[in-house]
Amino acid sequence: MTYAVIGGGNTGQAIAGYLRLKEESVKLYTRDPNKAQRISKQGLEVKGIYSGKVILEASTSMDEVISDAKFIIISTTAMGHETIVKQIKPILKDNQTIVFFPGYWGALECKRILGEHLIKNKNITVAETSAMPFVSIADNAGSVFINKIKHNVLISTLCEENPIALSFMNRFPQLILGNSVFETSLNNSNVVIHPPITLFNAARIDASEAFQFYTDGASPFSVNYVEKMDIERLQIASRLKVNTQSILTVLNEFYDTGYPTLYEALPGLFPTGLAPTTLDYRYMTEDIPFGLVPISELGKILGVETPYTDSIISAASLLMDSDYRKEGISFKGLTKESLLSMSVV
Amino acid sequence: MTYAVIGGGNTGQAIAGYLRLKEESVKLYTRDPNKAQRISKQGLEVKGIYSGKVILEASTSMDEVISDAKFIIISTTAMGHETIVKQIKPILKDNQTIVFFPGYWGALECKRILGEHLIKNKNITVAETSAMPFVSIADNAGSVFINKIKHNVLISTLCEENPIALSFMNRFPQLILGNSVFETSLNNSNVVIHPPITLFNAARIDASEAFQFYTDGASPFSVNYVEKMDIERLQIASRLKVNTQSILTVLNEFYDTGYPTLYEALPGLFPTGLAPTTLDYRYMTEDIPFGLVPISELGKILGVETPYTDSIISAASLLMDSDYRKEGISFKGLTKESLLSMSVV
Repeated sequence: MTYAVIGGGNTGQAIAGYLRLKEESVKLYTRDPNKAQRISKQGLEVKGIYSGKVILEASTSMDEVISDAKFIIISTTAMGHETIVKQIKPILKDNQTIVFFPGYWGALECKRILGEHLIKNKNITVAETSAMPFVSIADNAGSVFINKIKHNVLISTLCEENPIALSFMNRFPQLILGNSVFETSLNNSNVVIHPPITLFNAARIDASEAFQFYTDGASPFSVNYVEKMDIERLQIASRLKVNTQSILTVLNEFYDTGYPTLYEALPGLFPTGLAPTTLDYRYMTEDIPFGLVPISELGKILGVETPYTDSIISAASLLMDSDYRKEGISFKGLTKESLLSMSVV
Repeated sequence: MTYAVIGGGNTGQAIAGYLRLKEESVKLYTRDPNKAQRISKQGLEVKGIYSGKVILEASTSMDEVISDAKFIIISTTAMGHETIVKQIKPILKDNQTIVFFPGYWGALECKRILGEHLIKNKNITVAETSAMPFVSIADNAGSVFINKIKHNVLISTLCEENPIALSFMNRFPQLILGNSVFETSLNNSNVVIHPPITLFNAARIDASEAFQFYTDGASPFSVNYVEKMDIERLQIASRLKVNTQSILTVLNEFYDTGYPTLYEALPGLFPTGLAPTTLDYRYMTEDIPFGLVPISELGKILGVETPYTDSIISAASLLMDSDYRKEGISFKGLTKESLLSMSVV
């Protein structure tokens, strides 16, 4: 099977490397011509849970990367989704499948940009997951380290008529089928963990101090705040009749653990997770506009109050001099009824 | 002259010790019977800028402390103001002067609790300052260390007819006359500095990590946030026709320095100021309800938007599971016109 992996970051390289180790045909898209050249010339050294040296074609030409692909895996940050979908829109071929790893409402964004007509005419399957499949990190010298595999990562498609191919499910055994793209995007655990912990550690992140994000940074009050935000997320999901689990359960299922509290789970699961050294980082720039803003905006439409979520959006926007609400997913023009019809498959 | 100092904390002990060194007659009120007994028995060792051993009468009986006082100095935290004023209300004598060190809207609170009738009948002078007169710290073994004297601390009274006595002004040469209690309360520099820096360092304060509040904790983005809050405070003051200066100017005048930016002033002025080791601290519990809430509530009445201030109030209230807006100063029932008539003397 032929895969296009869009995004040459930590996860993009891990997915591409993993697929090549499984002897799939893979092309990797990266915006960085030097990286494309290096990977195409030297290949990738995969280390960690999987290991081996793979030959891999990387390119800055979107057309070249996706033209033969059955599956187009988009593993950029959520900020890149709109640009990527606009880029691939005119060159999509019949029967291709687009998978956002992870969703961050990417499937709905994709539908909005491509239009129902194009999706139907070309029989495009649009899917998204609730999380990255691996925890991984790539260096700039040509190796990618796959640290952990997440289990029970949800994957959903836009509509029942276009289910995700069995071959894809078999290739990523960590995936389990979800019921709708609302379920996958609302089960993204990052969005309620990263922003509040970042905000309550903002000064030392801003000062580039080295500290452990989940060990030093997740204090009792901060984790309590995360749990309150989680309740708001679960309330939205419940109104939309979407299956969700608490963040603690999601994390325990990802890593097959049994932590009794989130306060123990975070340092337990990520004992060496260094904090970012700048506030201009995806914990804010991705998780707020593409994670918290949609929860808050859904709350407005559904009549669910989300004060914990809203406070983080406001304080972080003001701190960073950014309008995260404007940058983010807003569900403009949608009503409670239209949301409900889309969320229940 | 006879002084009653209400509050046996760091500043109360410093003020009482300073006054005794100047050979004034002083009684100190403290709620702590052990502290009262110890001070009455052993006196106080004053160190730092002033020094000497003083004999001092301390008591847990409010009546005993204030009955002969010309000046009643209230130097508890703002949370204590209401209780103290209610306690002294039935035992106030003619011609006494009440001074809140510092105000935090204490003079207006006092007027609300005592009533105009009592204030007029007994000819009570009510005054407040914009800041503590000293930077000081007391230990539990009987000594108080006066570290710094602030200069240009504002003092205002409730009404022109009852000015502050010249003898009081002479005794505290760091005081300068302000025009109204709006001016003193709106010139409190703590309220825009402490809460945001605390919030953006919340996790490590919550985890009781030792760090320098103004050196490690005042990162560029955090200080920028403080400056934005300061602009909101200045806008409120301007609408009320109240004289105020930027926090940077206030600090430079307190300490007779010339720092060009707040980002340089904070670590420069307070290089060894350790952060609190709990979030349940006056940087939140005093500065938000008695500092930021009144700014925000004034904004509502005056039609000035205060998003930076509001975000800190909301996020901190949710983080601490406290309703700081409800606990704080609200100016209930006052209109733009009534505020303006009170603020312009």
